[in-house]
Amino acid sequence: MKALMIIADGLGGRPTDYKGKTCLEAANTPNIDELTRQGDTGLLDPIKPGVRPESDTAHLSLFGYDPEEVYTGRGVFEALGMGMDVEEGDVCFRTNFATVDENLIIRDRRASRIQEGQKELEEALGGLKTSQSGVEVLFRASTEHRGALVLRGSGLSDRITDPDPHKTGVKVPKAKPETAEKSAKKTAKIVNELVKKSHEILRDLPLNKKREKEGKLPANILLPRGASMRPSLPSIKELYGIEGVAIAAGALYIGVARAAGLKFKRAEGVTGGFDSPIINKAKLAVKELNEGADFAFVHMKGADSCAHDHDAEGKIAFIEKVDEVIGYFLNNLNWDETHVVFTGDHTTPIVCGDHVSDPVPIVFAGPNVVPDDVGEFNERSVQKGGVGRISGQAVLPLLFGYCDFSKKFGT
Amino acid sequence: MKALMIIADGLGGRPTDYKGKTCLEAANTPNIDELTRQGDTGLLDPIKPGVRPESDTAHLSLFGYDPEEVYTGRGVFEALGMGMDVEEGDVCFRTNFATVDENLIIRDRRASRIQEGQKELEEALGGLKTSQSGVEVLFRASTEHRGALVLRGSGLSDRITDPDPHKTGVKVPKAKPETAEKSAKKTAKIVNELVKKSHEILRDLPLNKKREKEGKLPANILLPRGASMRPSLPSIKELYGIEGVAIAAGALYIGVARAAGLKFKRAEGVTGGFDSPIINKAKLAVKELNEGADFAFVHMKGADSCAHDHDAEGKIAFIEKVDEVIGYFLNNLNWDETHVVFTGDHTTPIVCGDHVSDPVPIVFAGPNVVPDDVGEFNERSVQKGGVGRISGQAVLPLLFGYCDFSKKFGT
Repeated sequence: MKALMIIADGLGGRPTDYKGKTCLEAANTPNIDELTRQGDTGLLDPIKPGVRPESDTAHLSLFGYDPEEVYTGRGVFEALGMGMDVEEGDVCFRTNFATVDENLIIRDRRASRIQEGQKELEEALGGLKTSQSGVEVLFRASTEHRGALVLRGSGLSDRITDPDPHKTGVKVPKAKPETAEKSAKKTAKIVNELVKKSHEILRDLPLNKKREKEGKLPANILLPRGASMRPSLPSIKELYGIEGVAIAAGALYIGVARAAGLKFKRAEGVTGGFDSPIINKAKLAVKELNEGADFAFVHMKGADSCAHDHDAEGKIAFIEKVDEVIGYFLNNLNWDETHVVFTGDHTTPIVCGDHVSDPVPIVFAGPNVVPDDVGEFNERSVQKGGVGRISGQAVLPLLFGYCDFSKKFGT
Repeated sequence: MKALMIIADGLGGRPTDYKGKTCLEAANTPNIDELTRQGDTGLLDPIKPGVRPESDTAHLSLFGYDPEEVYTGRGVFEALGMGMDVEEGDVCFRTNFATVDENLIIRDRRASRIQEGQKELEEALGGLKTSQSGVEVLFRASTEHRGALVLRGSGLSDRITDPDPHKTGVKVPKAKPETAEKSAKKTAKIVNELVKKSHEILRDLPLNKKREKEGKLPANILLPRGASMRPSLPSIKELYGIEGVAIAAGALYIGVARAAGLKFKRAEGVTGGFDSPIINKAKLAVKELNEGADFAFVHMKGADSCAHDHDAEGKIAFIEKVDEVIGYFLNNLNWDETHVVFTGDHTTPIVCGDHVSDPVPIVFAGPNVVPDDVGEFNERSVQKGGVGRISGQAVLPLLFGYCDFSKKFGT
C-alpha cells in the first residue's frame, strides 16, 4: 500500500469570503468533487477545536505529533527547511535582513523585501564568528529578506528574547535571557554580539552601497528571532517502518517534514507562490510513490497567501489550480493500492487575512475507505460526512490505518 | 436501571470483504436493524482514531480504561480468565505446551494443538517448584496447548524476555532480565529453572509416551511468554457502585472483565468457536439482569475467528447468529429499564485476516436514548448517526450515563 497526504495551505474559509460563499464553494472543482464522491469526508480541527493554528504547529499535528507537547518554536523548522542540518543542542533562529539607520533605529524589518543579492549577503555573513569559544555560527539566506541562523556548541539555550522588536521606529533591542541559567545568558550574549557584527559587515557591503545609490533600503543588519532547539520527535519511519518523501516549496513545510523524518524532494520550477507550477509536485509525487516511497506529503501554498492578502478571487483561482492537481492524481495514481487524504492545514478567511480556528474540510479515499454520500467538497457539505469531526493528530494514523502500516497495540 | 454491553468480536469490515460489501452489509440482520431503528448510532474507534487494537487493549478501552496508561501485557488477563487469582506483585504468563527434541530444539510451538490430556498435563506440572525460597508457582492448563503460569512472592518483576522464540527450528532461549534490577534477574532465573524442570517432568509422562507411539508430537515442554503484573484498575463497582457480570467463553475476555471487577458467569455449552450456542449467553444475561446484576457484558467471538481465516461467508453466517441473540434480547429484556450498547471490539477485514484501526459501527438503545434516523446497522449507514464518532473509553460512561449510574463531577 501507498499513502499520499495532500495539503492545500489555508484551504478553509468562511461564508463571508465571496458573495455569501466560501472560496471552496465558489471555486469550480470537478476533480476534488470526484475524489469526494469516491471518499469519506468530514471536518478537521487542525490542532483541536478552537485552537488557532500557525503553519508549523498545524503541520506538526498533521504529522501525528501533539504540538502542545513537542513544539519548541519555528526557528528549527526554518533552518531544517533551508537544508541546514540541525543537531541536538543547536539553537536555531529565523532571521530577517532589515534596514537600520546609524543609531540602529529600525526603518524596515524586511529591507523592503529585498529581491536580489541573497548569495552575496550569505557569503558576507559566512564569516560571522562569536568570541565565545567552542560555539560555531552557521547562516543561510533564503528568499527575499529571509534566512536562518544556527548556533552550535555546548551550553546553549533557546530561552532568550528576540533582538527583533517586531516593529519599526525603535532601536534594535538586546536579546535577554528568559531564565537565570548560565546557558541563556551565554546565548543572549552571543546573539547580541552577532547582531552587532552583522551590521558592521553588511553596512559597507557593495550590494548595499549600490542599493542606497538607487534609493533602495539597504539590507544592513541581521535580526534573528524565534530561538528554538530541535524537538525530540520519533520519526515516521521509527513509528511506522515506512519511507516518506516531502514535496513542498516553503522552507517551513520542508522543515517540519524533515523533522518528522521525511526526505525532501524538489519539484521542478516550484516557488511557493501563486504562479508556482504545482502540477509538477503531483508528477513528482506519483513518480516517488512508483519508485519505492511508501508515503508522499505534497504541500501547496498559494490559497493561503491570497487569503492573507484578502484576495478572494485569487484564492478561488488557486483552488482551481489545486483541482487540476487532484485531477492528475485521479488519473495517474495506482488506486488499487493507494490511500489519499486531502485537506488544509487551517482556515484563512478573506476578511480576516489570517489563520482562524474554524475547522477545514477533509476527505479520505482509497480501496479500504467506506465512502459516504457527500458529493461536493466544502465547509458545508462535509458536515454530513462519515469521518465526522476529527483533530489533526488523527489524520496520519487514520491514513496509515487504511494502508495497514500501523503496528498493533497489545499482545 | 440495567445496562447491557454486547460485543461481537471483530465485527467491523471493509468494502473489499464480500462482493463490494462489508460482511455486516451482506448479512441478513433484521433484529440488529430493529435495535438500530430504536437506537442511536455512530462509529467507534475502539482505542482512538488510527490505533490498531489487540483484543486485550480494545476491551480495556471498552471498559473505560486508557490502555496507554494501564496496559501491562496479556499474561495477567489469560491467568485471570482461566480462573486463577492474581494478587498484587504476582507475575503472570501465557504458556504453550510445545514439542522439543532432546537438544531442546523446538519442533512445534503448540504440540500440534494437542486435543487431549490437559488435566494430566496440569496435574503433572502441579508439582513445579522453584529453588528460590518464598516464591510460589501456580499453573493451569486451558484448551489445547494453552495455559497460564503465575509466580507469587516478593521481589519479582515482569521485565524479562520470553523463553519462547516464537518460531521453530531453534533452541529454547533463556529468559533474560530487561533491566538491571535484582527482581528481573531473579524472575528470569526462576523462569529458566521452571522451563527446564517442565521438560524433565513432561518428557516421560505416560500421555507423551503414548502420543509418541501413535506418531504424534509430545507436549514435552512449557513455554511461558508475555510476563505481566496485574494493572492497577479501579473496579467498575468502585467507580460506579454497581454489580456487573461477564458472560464470555475466551479466557482473555473473561480475564479483562475480571480485572475490571466483573463476576464471570459460565453460559451452558459455550466454546468461543463458530458453533458455540451463543443464544445461551443471551439467556444467561437476561437471567442475571433479572436476578440482581446491574450490568452484564456479553462477548461473542466467532466473527473475528472467521475473519482471521479470510472466511467472509463464515463471518456473515456468524453475524446472522449474533442477530438471533439480538432478537432474543429484543423479546426478553425489560426495555422499560434497560439500556444496551452493541458494537465490536475492532475491525477485522477478510482480506487482511487481522485487526485494523478502521472504526466499528455502534448502537445505543433504551428508554433514555434519543434515536436517530438510521435504520440499518453497518459501516456506511451509521456514518449519519446521532452518536457521531467516539473512542472506546467513552462507551461504558455513555451507557452508564443513560442508566444514571454515574456520579456528578463537581460539587
